[in-house]
Amino acid sequence: MQRIDLHTALDQIKPVDPARLAEVQARIDRQAKPQGSLGRLEEFARRYVAITGREAIGKKVVFTFAGDHGVVEEGVSAFPREVTPQMVFNFLDGGAAINALARHVGAEVIVVDMGVDHEFQPKDGLLLKKVGRGTANIARGPAMSREQAVACLESGIELAVSCKEAGVDLVGTGDMGIGNTTPSSAIAAAFTGLSPDRVTHRGTGIDDASLRRKVEVIERALEVNRPDPEDPVGVLAKVGGFEIGGIAGLVLGCAAVGLPVVVDGFISTAGAMIASELHPRVRDYLFAAHRSVEIGHRHMLERLKQRPMLDLEMRLGEGTGGALAMGLIEASLRAFREIRTFDEAGVEKGADQ
Amino acid sequence: MQRIDLHTALDQIKPVDPARLAEVQARIDRQAKPQGSLGRLEEFARRYVAITGREAIGKKVVFTFAGDHGVVEEGVSAFPREVTPQMVFNFLDGGAAINALARHVGAEVIVVDMGVDHEFQPKDGLLLKKVGRGTANIARGPAMSREQAVACLESGIELAVSCKEAGVDLVGTGDMGIGNTTPSSAIAAAFTGLSPDRVTHRGTGIDDASLRRKVEVIERALEVNRPDPEDPVGVLAKVGGFEIGGIAGLVLGCAAVGLPVVVDGFISTAGAMIASELHPRVRDYLFAAHRSVEIGHRHMLERLKQRPMLDLEMRLGEGTGGALAMGLIEASLRAFREIRTFDEAGVEKGADQ
Repeated sequence: MQRIDLHTALDQIKPVDPARLAEVQARIDRQAKPQGSLGRLEEFARRYVAITGREAIGKKVVFTFAGDHGVVEEGVSAFPREVTPQMVFNFLDGGAAINALARHVGAEVIVVDMGVDHEFQPKDGLLLKKVGRGTANIARGPAMSREQAVACLESGIELAVSCKEAGVDLVGTGDMGIGNTTPSSAIAAAFTGLSPDRVTHRGTGIDDASLRRKVEVIERALEVNRPDPEDPVGVLAKVGGFEIGGIAGLVLGCAAVGLPVVVDGFISTAGAMIASELHPRVRDYLFAAHRSVEIGHRHMLERLKQRPMLDLEMRLGEGTGGALAMGLIEASLRAFREIRTFDEAGVEKGADQ
Repeated sequence: MQRIDLHTALDQIKPVDPARLAEVQARIDRQAKPQGSLGRLEEFARRYVAITGREAIGKKVVFTFAGDHGVVEEGVSAFPREVTPQMVFNFLDGGAAINALARHVGAEVIVVDMGVDHEFQPKDGLLLKKVGRGTANIARGPAMSREQAVACLESGIELAVSCKEAGVDLVGTGDMGIGNTTPSSAIAAAFTGLSPDRVTHRGTGIDDASLRRKVEVIERALEVNRPDPEDPVGVLAKVGGFEIGGIAGLVLGCAAVGLPVVVDGFISTAGAMIASELHPRVRDYLFAAHRSVEIGHRHMLERLKQRPMLDLEMRLGEGTGGALAMGLIEASLRAFREIRTFDEAGVEKGADQ
């Protein structure tokens, strides 16, 4: 497999060809329906076809990146840390929400151990890319070293390259890591400049007292680490997470190799934001899957200039929203391929068509 | 086939059993994920399972009701009237958007001629239920007689009964009728009491001058006909349409026989509103598929107390949003069936679970 480092990947990212986008839209506009009447389905098809040069989706893969977080010792999560490896086993056994929803859209789920505090044995469907056994507590110092942050990014890039080589057509991001809304909110605050209370929410379901504590923990993490928004790798190292770095690398790598990537909810968007801060054209390849219940999500989406495809009040992560979004992209391509033109269908055009 | 008239259907409508809804939710709450974290997917599964007693969807049918509108002579549409039968032929040949999207979710499309200004020969996939060759011009008098309105409703009810007998699990509504956003806006104004300019939009894509004319035409229709919101059958007769009546009857019939019904966009919601005004418990069986670009839609949804499942800026009708929504309901059931419980998965519960 071709391996490319972070700088090479960044160099390879090119904007999606506007002429190709226009050409695809022109074909959509010849279809026998009022112009633009399929709304965002037209956008999904246009972007997918322009990025890939293909009109259908063959292989689809959701990567669920897993990692643990030292900050859990501050009491920021409703679930104990042990749940991270327990859920990894649940994913591998096919019993979690992401497995069900991925099966619904015909996507494969691959779990990537980026930094779970557990030594996994090799298993089908599990990639061992461990950078550490959980990050350090961001309320007391950096989550990881800069070298570890780059290692996370390059692991994600490597997955994108391997997808391209294996003929995967559509990639989805997902996450598992007890405590990982805390670094995600910290990343959101670092890049947007908003105060932590505006980008911090209840995660898997903490009460009011825990929410106040979580905001304070993030305030401390930002004070202690002073992440510089002009240095995205530094932000990842200081207040990020191993799985968030893997997601950022995957998104960046997809842009580098020309693969569309469906970005799940809050944690995945934190990863995508790091990628986008490293290279803004990453956005050309992103599909923001859904709007999370987490209040910080919309601020991240605004900064990324992305409008989510779905708004179903989900807040589970794992890649679940991404799997649903894959189904919508597939529907948009079905419409693209199968709706006849006005001429083919023998339908008269309207006054403005 | 059992035939039931309008009054019998209304008598048969019962609320969905709250105990059954709670029982289904309790099972969802045992699944290994933070409680409520699948958001509206949980609602979709809960309602579908409680209504049908089934945990999967077998047969799915989208009924695309077609009719013509006398009001087209006022210049309210960007497309000529001939497009209604042309699109019916396109549906029957499988070349339209609804065919593509229904294939994507494995649903059958059945076209119902409620009142197209064309004599169709019998054909597979076409049901001939013609009540008239297009309505009369609502700007000058009633669209149809009260008897015709009841005939439309009872045709729709009959389809729901036949679905129940044929083992259909999920029904979708759709429409085709050049000019039919005009009666739909008139219906919206009649029930909500809002002025026509607040519920009238561009339909398939008219310009500013045509939009002003369309608002005036609806104002005239309301003045000439004086529809009484307390008399929903009268509203349908005075300012409705044959296909809108068919949709209203189908929705009502689904509630009567206990079938969940996915209601497409603006025109379908006008039909659902007539059904809901006839019997408010109809709403228990509705799934509002998507938010239309038409500005009147949100007022109708508010009155129906429905939140749409999707918001993709679509404005095509045919049942296209409904087909996409069927895919989401199916995904929700996949999650309902396949996500393991905390015990089964060996995952620890959180503090608040």
